[in-house]
Amino acid sequence: MNYTHNFNPTISDEEVFQKIVDEKESIGYYNLANQDASIYKEYAKTVKQKNIVVIGIGGSTLGTYAIYKFLKHSKKLDKKLFFLESTDPIELKSKIEQIDLEDSLFIVISKSGTTVETISIFKYINSLVKCDKNNTVVVTESDSKLNSFAMANGMKSFEIPKNVGGRFSVFSAVGLLPLAIVGIDVDEILGGIKDLYDSFFGKQDDCKRILNKARFIAEYKNKFNINVVFSYSSRLEGFNKWYVQLWGESLGKVDINSTKQGLTPVGIIGPIDQHSFLQLIVEGTRDKTVTVIKVEDFDNHFKVPNITLEGLEELSYLEGIEFSSLINKQADATIESINNLNDIPCDVMTIDGVKERSISRLMYEFELLTSVVAQFLYINAYDQPGVESGKIILKDKLKTKVFS
Amino acid sequence: MNYTHNFNPTISDEEVFQKIVDEKESIGYYNLANQDASIYKEYAKTVKQKNIVVIGIGGSTLGTYAIYKFLKHSKKLDKKLFFLESTDPIELKSKIEQIDLEDSLFIVISKSGTTVETISIFKYINSLVKCDKNNTVVVTESDSKLNSFAMANGMKSFEIPKNVGGRFSVFSAVGLLPLAIVGIDVDEILGGIKDLYDSFFGKQDDCKRILNKARFIAEYKNKFNINVVFSYSSRLEGFNKWYVQLWGESLGKVDINSTKQGLTPVGIIGPIDQHSFLQLIVEGTRDKTVTVIKVEDFDNHFKVPNITLEGLEELSYLEGIEFSSLINKQADATIESINNLNDIPCDVMTIDGVKERSISRLMYEFELLTSVVAQFLYINAYDQPGVESGKIILKDKLKTKVFS
Repeated sequence: MNYTHNFNPTISDEEVFQKIVDEKESIGYYNLANQDASIYKEYAKTVKQKNIVVIGIGGSTLGTYAIYKFLKHSKKLDKKLFFLESTDPIELKSKIEQIDLEDSLFIVISKSGTTVETISIFKYINSLVKCDKNNTVVVTESDSKLNSFAMANGMKSFEIPKNVGGRFSVFSAVGLLPLAIVGIDVDEILGGIKDLYDSFFGKQDDCKRILNKARFIAEYKNKFNINVVFSYSSRLEGFNKWYVQLWGESLGKVDINSTKQGLTPVGIIGPIDQHSFLQLIVEGTRDKTVTVIKVEDFDNHFKVPNITLEGLEELSYLEGIEFSSLINKQADATIESINNLNDIPCDVMTIDGVKERSISRLMYEFELLTSVVAQFLYINAYDQPGVESGKIILKDKLKTKVFS
Repeated sequence: MNYTHNFNPTISDEEVFQKIVDEKESIGYYNLANQDASIYKEYAKTVKQKNIVVIGIGGSTLGTYAIYKFLKHSKKLDKKLFFLESTDPIELKSKIEQIDLEDSLFIVISKSGTTVETISIFKYINSLVKCDKNNTVVVTESDSKLNSFAMANGMKSFEIPKNVGGRFSVFSAVGLLPLAIVGIDVDEILGGIKDLYDSFFGKQDDCKRILNKARFIAEYKNKFNINVVFSYSSRLEGFNKWYVQLWGESLGKVDINSTKQGLTPVGIIGPIDQHSFLQLIVEGTRDKTVTVIKVEDFDNHFKVPNITLEGLEELSYLEGIEFSSLINKQADATIESINNLNDIPCDVMTIDGVKERSISRLMYEFELLTSVVAQFLYINAYDQPGVESGKIILKDKLKTKVFS
């Protein structure tokens, strides 16, 4: 007898943890927690331009946008950060019109160095303003064509390590460079992920919690094929988008038993999406887990004023309540109403405040969770073979056009 | 023998169509296609303020935002539209800081008239600027407390008919009033939906197509419990959010056989989300239908310039291509790669251009589709009982606070 296929047994928490420890030798993002951010801070000091324009898409922008969107109104930042991502011509035009290109630093970010959207947009920018070593830097792999371009033009180049995937790259040069330049404290960013790194790899409580959650998600993947993140702050809108990429692109894979796996991420914002998505959670098919994210301290105390509106007296109970308290009570009411149903898995993550350490730690936790879920599912979290065929078809279509 | 429960048989297209025709007598949104927009156009002429500030949430804002976002860069609008929705204190503060409140018209929109977020924010605005009949109008049901407030203060009030639900209200005063004021052609908006109304109720091709699609979605609801809308234009970002509310809140319901139904909407934007979600569609579990939306004519012809970048010569095939052609080829490449897989239901909707008629017709089609799917599923598309318990819990929490 001869067997060609091994079906893999359910894997234990201990084995998964060991696989993560082993994987840390080859997968680069874990150790970004242990780096020194000096090169970014030093470079940031030299930047004179007021506008920082990131040209990139997907993993080259989503994480940076998540952190910037979370912090920008709470920090006194003296530079503005823009993102040019889409080839939508109307979007591109209107975004560019908002930027003083003469007072801009362009950061061209592409891991492969040949991302179609990024290079197309960068070429377009080149037609509007002279791009040279004084106003352009690149972030890419060391042996990419984009790096060749930078070298040929004497431009500064920052490296994305080969073993750090795009969607896991926010704590590399991809995120730290633009964030440091606009004035975000990248040491605090790294401090937040280092705390969790130490706790996870030191097998503290965080480790057990992440393993438990990942095992639940993996075991119930066929019943709960949708994982909702319900963030109670508009500041987390960028985080939600980043989560959608991280989760969807990492966990939508064919496993080692040739079976398609895929957990669908949904990111929603409270209280706005109480008015759109909550009904579906509460009365719809039981196919979702829900993770509610709250911000404990908005460091903002403005209130619903003591103004009585004639005819609307019944709403006077709102008077004197801080908006930060109102939004958190809305979150609590949602959590309570979901928990009362007793058949929807719901966990709550409360982050301390609108601070660098809070957002970076939250993001690193989702990266670890993604890696652990992938181990339980016997899939590779770090590749994306499914998007290659579309890229080849596109290239054919574009090349045909040129010669037609 | 006595029976207490009837299990309903599969319903035919003809029966569903008849139910929709019958429903048209009591459900108000269908006939919004037949209204006259004069009252909105007349009022619009009287508005002197430069900033139009909609205070509302959910169904009171999402549809208007969808249309405004779609059109705003392609039309010469002489007024700006803002939306104050969230109780997130940092978001609220930063949005208000962008608006010249002294040169603003406030449109307070709440169907019930007592929406917590809306009234809280309106009270806050009252503490910053005097709100009276010269700068404030309301849009609400005729017998609501908000309408009492308007009457007590001599403010203009526009009615939301009782039988038009919030998420189906974009073509009522909710959307037409602010859109007319900022200079969008509301006759063209209504023209787009009237075309489809006539075609659908006249049993033309559109009718058959919508019935076919709805039946497929309903029949395969347990296999494909996720319906992805993949819009290839950043202009459709607001449309996607509106779709998520319409679909999720209408179809997440307990059916007449006491069974929870629920189709989960996901809205993504191309080409950005090729870099985040496409991998999951292509290699993940087969639990999704995909509807790709393309814009045929962006009415914009700027190109990737003929600039060769040293080191990046391999991407020279991009040169001379219009961005509008690039994004549509990206859409086509995605469609082709999905269709090549042969096991993902994928349809394509191509809208003519960035015009009023195009976006309104698209939205009305999704409203009709939602109503028809609901009939196949034996659910009520128009209520939202699942969000009531959270509202009651919140009210308790807020009232307790006041007296503690």
